[in-house]
Amino acid sequence: MTTGEASMEATAEHDGPGAKRRDVLAHLRAHRGHVIHVVDPFKVEVAEAVQKARAVTAAGMPALLLASTDYEDFETHMPAYLNAVRAATDIPTILHFPPIPGRGFPVVPEAESMMLPALLGSDDPYYVWKSLLETYALGNGVPPAPQPLLSAALTFGRDDRSYARMGTRPVAQDEQSVLAYAQRARQFGFDMVYLYSRNEQVTTRTCELFREVLAPEQLLFASGGVRTPEQVDAYLQAGADYVIFAGALETPDWRAALDRLCSAGQLQRRALSLT
Amino acid sequence: MTTGEASMEATAEHDGPGAKRRDVLAHLRAHRGHVIHVVDPFKVEVAEAVQKARAVTAAGMPALLLASTDYEDFETHMPAYLNAVRAATDIPTILHFPPIPGRGFPVVPEAESMMLPALLGSDDPYYVWKSLLETYALGNGVPPAPQPLLSAALTFGRDDRSYARMGTRPVAQDEQSVLAYAQRARQFGFDMVYLYSRNEQVTTRTCELFREVLAPEQLLFASGGVRTPEQVDAYLQAGADYVIFAGALETPDWRAALDRLCSAGQLQRRALSLT
Repeated sequence: MTTGEASMEATAEHDGPGAKRRDVLAHLRAHRGHVIHVVDPFKVEVAEAVQKARAVTAAGMPALLLASTDYEDFETHMPAYLNAVRAATDIPTILHFPPIPGRGFPVVPEAESMMLPALLGSDDPYYVWKSLLETYALGNGVPPAPQPLLSAALTFGRDDRSYARMGTRPVAQDEQSVLAYAQRARQFGFDMVYLYSRNEQVTTRTCELFREVLAPEQLLFASGGVRTPEQVDAYLQAGADYVIFAGALETPDWRAALDRLCSAGQLQRRALSLT
Repeated sequence: MTTGEASMEATAEHDGPGAKRRDVLAHLRAHRGHVIHVVDPFKVEVAEAVQKARAVTAAGMPALLLASTDYEDFETHMPAYLNAVRAATDIPTILHFPPIPGRGFPVVPEAESMMLPALLGSDDPYYVWKSLLETYALGNGVPPAPQPLLSAALTFGRDDRSYARMGTRPVAQDEQSVLAYAQRARQFGFDMVYLYSRNEQVTTRTCELFREVLAPEQLLFASGGVRTPEQVDAYLQAGADYVIFAGALETPDWRAALDRLCSAGQLQRRALSLT
């Protein structure tokens, strides 16, 4: 470990007033090889979110993401929503919302952790990294705020809406492009890399290349259109640490969908290895 | 201008208590095509620094850098030193010091501006960018602190000492390597790019390539072993906005050296164009 890394780990500690928090990054590193569900608090009613929090906890998921690309009235809507979810589960809840220029990433102080994505493929420096500087300058993201997870966020597949809003260009999945991003994510020492599919699947080869280049402690998240245990297995086998899904449980029969996704062979084997 | 850029410019304003400061970045953009001297406050006695501040002001330089790779007792040494220099000149004084893990970039609140270098070629994420996050998290670099100049700092030529300390690998001066760094500096929206020669000259071709890729508002600084007006001319003609020298004036006959360097043809032509 370099002096720099030691320093940042020191600043990521959580000794703030009244805040006896887990180290969520260490927790995620210790529970690799799993699925994580994302609840959109601006689409899913809080009662359903509470039920889902209980269900994913029972299913053995190591964390729950609260995330939305679109949000309004964050400050009035989110605290009660988060607290209701937190009361229903003992797994970490992680916030994941885009920043707003002038305001940075939105925060609920009671959250244990928040992802701070750097959109390495964006044309707009604000979304590439200045949003993180702004967030720290404003005191959001600074301990004892929720533990920041520095995340390199990359999108795959054309997505005009994200481009218009945040300047994100899709990463081409040729070896050279993928390796260049993986090397940058490693050099910058991000806690994690989050691969988003948009109208195109993240390939297992892309996962493999990232895993080869990233440092062992850096986490790899893969997401996008995951509906089957076979997809979960394929990503985990390709080196993803976490397979993320949101829409898969945005159906009336979400309990069945959850059971199906959690039947992935990789998950079962890893669970067995713990007994 | 994107919303993101607008936002960061807003946070770079200086309306803090008692701080009626110039926008140093705008000032530097308005006085392109010049030389700037660097005083090392940990090598040069304050009386000499004051004389040099007067001399470079009389010579028409648009700013003065106070910089050192090595410093001790920054907090006790620097405020009086800076104030003595500031009293001797009306051009902006800009701090430029490396960060220390756990403490970020050192600050003298009275300085008008401070360069915050991101060492894009470093192997240590702290020096690549986490030092900036730490500095903002600590409240250094946040207005009304000295105006931050976000700087992509790149070193050319092998320098084992810098590598041991900050993990910096020299940039190779082939076209592909230079373009890759220039594109990154542009994408991240740095205010400026600072090219350092270490046991190897920054080539004029390297300056040209950076200038071609950088956005018009991004400033380009070239430095390293500059001793002659011909060197100054060559860098300015190649697209550098500022040519920086320190050692050239670290001699007893520094006034003669200053005159010689300021006799560069580019400087004269640009000065004439203002009349």
